[in-house]
Amino acid sequence: MSVSVLESSLAPRLPESSATLFEAKQAKNLTFAEIGNAVGRDEVAVAALFYGQAKASAEDIDALSTLLSVPKEPLAKQLAGFPDRGRSIEMPPKEPLIYRLYEIVQNYGLAYKAVLNEKFGDGIMSAISFSTKVEKEVDDQGTWAVITIRGKWLPYTRF
Amino acid sequence: MSVSVLESSLAPRLPESSATLFEAKQAKNLTFAEIGNAVGRDEVAVAALFYGQAKASAEDIDALSTLLSVPKEPLAKQLAGFPDRGRSIEMPPKEPLIYRLYEIVQNYGLAYKAVLNEKFGDGIMSAISFSTKVEKEVDDQGTWAVITIRGKWLPYTRF
Amino acid sequence: MSVSVLESSLAPRLPESSATLFEAKQAKNLTFAEIGNAVGRDEVAVAALFYGQAKASAEDIDALSTLLSVPKEPLAKQLAGFPDRGRSIEMPPKEPLIYRLYEIVQNYGLAYKAVLNEKFGDGIMSAISFSTKVEKEVDDQGTWAVITIRGKWLPYTRF
Amino acid sequence: MSVSVLESSLAPRLPESSATLFEAKQAKNLTFAEIGNAVGRDEVAVAALFYGQAKASAEDIDALSTLLSVPKEPLAKQLAGFPDRGRSIEMPPKEPLIYRLYEIVQNYGLAYKAVLNEKFGDGIMSAISFSTKVEKEVDDQGTWAVITIRGKWLPYTRF
Amino acid sequence: MSVSVLESSLAPRLPESSATLFEAKQAKNLTFAEIGNAVGRDEVAVAALFYGQAKASAEDIDALSTLLSVPKEPLAKQLAGFPDRGRSIEMPPKEPLIYRLYEIVQNYGLAYKAVLNEKFGDGIMSAISFSTKVEKEVDDQGTWAVITIRGKWLPYTRF
Amino acid sequence: MSVSVLESSLAPRLPESSATLFEAKQAKNLTFAEIGNAVGRDEVAVAALFYGQAKASAEDIDALSTLLSVPKEPLAKQLAGFPDRGRSIEMPPKEPLIYRLYEIVQNYGLAYKAVLNEKFGDGIMSAISFSTKVEKEVDDQGTWAVITIRGKWLPYTRF
Amino acid sequence: MSVSVLESSLAPRLPESSATLFEAKQAKNLTFAEIGNAVGRDEVAVAALFYGQAKASAEDIDALSTLLSVPKEPLAKQLAGFPDRGRSIEMPPKEPLIYRLYEIVQNYGLAYKAVLNEKFGDGIMSAISFSTKVEKEVDDQGTWAVITIRGKWLPYTRF
Amino acid sequence: MSVSVLESSLAPRLPESSATLFEAKQAKNLTFAEIGNAVGRDEVAVAALFYGQAKASAEDIDALSTLLSVPKEPLAKQLAGFPDRGRSIEMPPKEPLIYRLYEIVQNYGLAYKAVLNEKFGDGIMSAISFSTKVEKEVDDQGTWAVITIRGKWLPYTRF
Amino acid sequence: MSVSVLESSLAPRLPESSATLFEAKQAKNLTFAEIGNAVGRDEVAVAALFYGQAKASAEDIDALSTLLSVPKEPLAKQLAGFPDRGRSIEMPPKEPLIYRLYEIVQNYGLAYKAVLNEKFGDGIMSAISFSTKVEKEVDDQGTWAVITIRGKWLPYTRF
Amino acid sequence: MSVSVLESSLAPRLPESSATLFEAKQAKNLTFAEIGNAVGRDEVAVAALFYGQAKASAEDIDALSTLLSVPKEPLAKQLAGFPDRGRSIEMPPKEPLIYRLYEIVQNYGLAYKAVLNEKFGDGIMSAISFSTKVEKEVDDQGTWAVITIRGKWLPYTRF
Repeated sequence: MSVSVLESSLAPRLPESSATLFEAKQAKNLTFAEIGNAVGRDEVAVAALFYGQAKASAEDIDALSTLLSVPKEPLAKQLAGFPDRGRSIEMPPKEPLIYRLYEIVQNYGLAYKAVLNEKFGDGIMSAISFSTKVEKEVDDQGTWAVITIRGKWLPYTRF
Repeated sequence: MSVSVLESSLAPRLPESSATLFEAKQAKNLTFAEIGNAVGRDEVAVAALFYGQAKASAEDIDALSTLLSVPKEPLAKQLAGFPDRGRSIEMPPKEPLIYRLYEIVQNYGLAYKAVLNEKFGDGIMSAISFSTKVEKEVDDQGTWAVITIRGKWLPYTRF
Repeated sequence: MSVSVLESSLAPRLPESSATLFEAKQAKNLTFAEIGNAVGRDEVAVAALFYGQAKASAEDIDALSTLLSVPKEPLAKQLAGFPDRGRSIEMPPKEPLIYRLYEIVQNYGLAYKAVLNEKFGDGIMSAISFSTKVEKEVDDQGTWAVITIRGKWLPYTRF
Repeated sequence: MSVSVLESSLAPRLPESSATLFEAKQAKNLTFAEIGNAVGRDEVAVAALFYGQAKASAEDIDALSTLLSVPKEPLAKQLAGFPDRGRSIEMPPKEPLIYRLYEIVQNYGLAYKAVLNEKFGDGIMSAISFSTKVEKEVDDQGTWAVITIRGKWLPYTRF
Repeated sequence: MSVSVLESSLAPRLPESSATLFEAKQAKNLTFAEIGNAVGRDEVAVAALFYGQAKASAEDIDALSTLLSVPKEPLAKQLAGFPDRGRSIEMPPKEPLIYRLYEIVQNYGLAYKAVLNEKFGDGIMSAISFSTKVEKEVDDQGTWAVITIRGKWLPYTRF
Repeated sequence: MSVSVLESSLAPRLPESSATLFEAKQAKNLTFAEIGNAVGRDEVAVAALFYGQAKASAEDIDALSTLLSVPKEPLAKQLAGFPDRGRSIEMPPKEPLIYRLYEIVQNYGLAYKAVLNEKFGDGIMSAISFSTKVEKEVDDQGTWAVITIRGKWLPYTRF
Repeated sequence: MSVSVLESSLAPRLPESSATLFEAKQAKNLTFAEIGNAVGRDEVAVAALFYGQAKASAEDIDALSTLLSVPKEPLAKQLAGFPDRGRSIEMPPKEPLIYRLYEIVQNYGLAYKAVLNEKFGDGIMSAISFSTKVEKEVDDQGTWAVITIRGKWLPYTRF
Repeated sequence: MSVSVLESSLAPRLPESSATLFEAKQAKNLTFAEIGNAVGRDEVAVAALFYGQAKASAEDIDALSTLLSVPKEPLAKQLAGFPDRGRSIEMPPKEPLIYRLYEIVQNYGLAYKAVLNEKFGDGIMSAISFSTKVEKEVDDQGTWAVITIRGKWLPYTRF
Repeated sequence: MSVSVLESSLAPRLPESSATLFEAKQAKNLTFAEIGNAVGRDEVAVAALFYGQAKASAEDIDALSTLLSVPKEPLAKQLAGFPDRGRSIEMPPKEPLIYRLYEIVQNYGLAYKAVLNEKFGDGIMSAISFSTKVEKEVDDQGTWAVITIRGKWLPYTRF
Repeated sequence: MSVSVLESSLAPRLPESSATLFEAKQAKNLTFAEIGNAVGRDEVAVAALFYGQAKASAEDIDALSTLLSVPKEPLAKQLAGFPDRGRSIEMPPKEPLIYRLYEIVQNYGLAYKAVLNEKFGDGIMSAISFSTKVEKEVDDQGTWAVITIRGKWLPYTRF
């Protein structure tokens, strides 16, 4: 099965590190799951890091440099600073796969809110103090993708 | 803990059934979990039904009519036909709770796609042949909301 | 000095409680500071509550009912449920006073992010676990409005 | 802790001086607080200057040239003229940290206006005759970011 | 020559006072210049007040009540509080007359900024501490409308 | 006081002549008022010409070539043809100075229309058969910018 | 052949006079050409007047009142004041017939400008000092609609 | 009188042929009318072709190559394929001349539709099976631009 | 299986006839296929007519009046005039079923154009001189919806 | 008849493979139908592949490399990974041919939904498990383009 690569027309809206990392990934023919195993992070987090949406720790940089045979110093320089998140895609998303996720928010947003409020009170589920994962399930009805998102519940402060 | 009710300024963009159902829900002081148990559907699906985003079966209408003490015939008439989904909220969502879900799509959309493609090939996760649920977890770091979404994997047809 | 009232053309995008509360406020000629003192909350929080952007506790409803001479039961019904925040104004804001706040975010947004990241690391300042206040200062250069916002720092979870 | 650097994909919408200044800042590994101390300006003002959102005085240019070891003449030429503010980010902001500030304006905008009008009369808080600062507070509930904005009150002229 | 009246389809986005005032104006067949003379304000300010874009003082309300034969108490109640400015027209304006003003900003905006900066330094011309007037000139080339806008110059605070 | 220069990130949306002219202006350290005097045009018109928003006559090109020491032939070639006006800024304007002008149109647009219609009848003030100027006034209340715009009145044709 | 009537869902964005006039037109079963003949104006101008996009003179009101058997006084009151043009349709137009006109502007806009500039110099064709008409032509290739628009050429003022 | 040339900042959104053709046109100092005469097409059609909005036939390419002294082979290659129309300007148009045409559609769109429907029935005027021309008229009231558009009437198919 | 009914919140953007027709359809429990058979039109055309997107002939009105037991005169009055098409849904469509059609245009639009141009030359497929139908196919891989659209090819006029 | 080529100004929003493939196609003067025959895929699918909207299998790459005389390795590298669909055109489409398809969705969207729901129940027609084709028909009324789209029917999961 193919590994994900960087669509060339996306590069100008991503940090320089994205091109560096994806090029090495394609050369090594590695999946994000394989990289995640080597780095000790979830594959979704690693993919986010490749797209400039997550911060790399010093250990991540070491591990990526070794695994991908990318010289460490320039990589560290490209990955310094703090991600400027959110600009990697335009909303509403045009990609059908990503649009389906957007559509779930659009169609079930109020339902999620109503249920979450009843279960937790007045507040939000954090998208920062947060983790997510993707799993595959196969049953007699076909193949299923399962996405789990887990975020801290933050109640509104009374002031 | 309070039960979710219908914000009055939302009503004009929802079907008539929404006002009918939410009014009865508030009068009976029932949560979506309680209604879901009675109807035999997940609480998120029931909330979606209340907001006009899911179709009620004949059995759902029977059960709702009984549980909520709403006359069956007018309810059945209001719930006839097929939901016109997606207009219940404006995108990008302004409600902070729903925005956080939107933000997850915005920030992790490409990462989800890359990982799903590597795991499943070229295709999408269906938002139609799909189910979801909300759970609560408590650990020593606080309270967590966990949302699971499970959709059929649909590969692109080669033609 | 005048007290703030509800602009009639705003009402359709606010919950019913807004009209109820503002009408009583105007009849009693009370400022938000006076109401805040009586209710035990900050005046900005009370104003947010009047505009449907903050949740009223049972005690708030008692206190408001008494202070404003509004019958408690219908008020409690109107204030039941959870605020559907964010729809009270359209963005970008057209009101000059609110636009100036928006402009500060627009012009200093990246500067705030850079400084906050350097002081706190990779994360955000919560707008939920959050409080704010407005103060007046007078010096020989004129009169100054001082707005303080205080939010919990939330670091990104590593996963 | 890392210092803030310039995300490469942001550069085309900023003036040339941004690249010059950020490159030198990264090479010297200086925070905005350290630069602010050397220049005699608040760290937020310095960050704004780096992003092309504030004007550098002749003294600022001298100090920056010395501190950052950037030749003075080309720096002065890049910083000549008057900032063309507001184009550094697209609104609504996609970066989660900046979005939270935007969300505060969206959710509390009318509340701020109502309270400010009651305290000061009909007018606005200036975003020009204005200063701001960022502070860190730690208490037993966690770490807090505190942003203070202070602007001159401008009453509407009667004509 | 006709007097300006309120286009009925505009009313829902204006405060209640607009309908009250314009109806009386039409009944009395008064121009804004005539009303301005009676109230002691410029005709543009009076028109802005009628459209809910300027605040009426207690004296204005007295004078308008008398001149227009509108009962004072309900008028005062409708004009209480602080204008929620900016929502009377959608931008970009569709009305050809107003579009021409918008077009001047669009086409000459940078030129105004460059010239103002050179004449006054780094700052803005206030639209709050501000007045405006409309005059008519006739010469051998035709009839000319002359709009003058006069605003306080506000330099950016150095901080 | 500084002279206005061309913000580098603006150049791609302006004609080539803008870079040529601004570079020479900065090198000569000339204000638009000084250039206007030399060319015999108002400083605002000259600034508009520099930003590609006004046409240069053959005499303008001669004068500019001489004053700015720019070779005439390439300048003439760059300034040939007819300006493609309106693309120099995005609307709504983000620059605070230009936004204030936009805000005046937004807040006073209907008032200007009502007053102009009453003074002139059904028509518009031309933005083509039009001139404008910027003046400075100082009184005991501070410094004031005065912008005058003068446009031909065009009545609607009856057909 | 049918006469044009007012689509009921359009009415809220049009002045009251539109409903009055169209109702009478439908009752009398008159085309705009017939009304134009009676009123002495072009049919397109009359249709524009019905949609609130053109001003009715006193004579127009007399003629319309008589022809359509609408009481004169309330009609005159509804048609008083000055049209607030441009809000009758949303742009881009969704109606296929109107979209085709919009498409012509979109596709041929630059071509028209280039040709008009070469023929007339730097300026615009007025849409105010302007008239238009619609004609039908039939030849062996089918039936053709011919729209002619004729506007005064306005050269830019040199200042 | 000047000939139209290509605004350099427009080039990136046009096909390569636009730069080639306009450069040669400027070098030869030819108007579109002159080129149209040589090619045997209307000047507006030729201008559209230059902006990539109309297809060149083999004969057009021959004629243009000869007239403009552009080598035929590369020109033919640049003009091969089918125009990707509509992207040459952004809508709503910002250029005042083109905006006036857009404004005519905005203000008279419904009137054109009503009159066309009454004259032709239910259908549209084609913008494909279509031609247009620009003429100049001078009378004692001034100079007039006359644009004629002629499109085939297409009735809706009944199915 | 249920018949389609009118979602109440859609009604305000549709003509009055939509409510009349859908109410009768629901009362009679008829599908569009059944109505189409009775009227002699395709079911999609009938549905379009119900949503105000297609014109009813006199015969259609007769047939509908009889079949649906709706008094003929008021129905004829509601269906008089010419449809104001295109406003029944907002684009991009939010309804998942309609979005999928939109997505096909978005993803395959250029491919359709390239293939159509190669097969037919420079032109368009008419959406006016046009018909469409919906069919159901079942095979061993499941159930398939087949939509056929058939439009006249219109070549661009050379002028 | 001409073959479709790549409009140069489209290239930056497409993957690198698009330029490679279209250049070879133009050099070989092949239609998509011819390429489709050679590759064993429908011509629309091949065009989508050229525009980066469909995935190439290993066999496709072999066949294209041979047919188009493009070296296989760099082509394979450019076509690795998974298409990032949907960004090739901006919506609403400006190209008249593609707009017509969009218009069909806009005008008949609700009708399609109503008919599909009645025929298939609550669900959608898949745009992923989907194929399409373009055919030409000629009859005595002219030339017709026929587009067939065939997608799997997906019922909503009850949960």
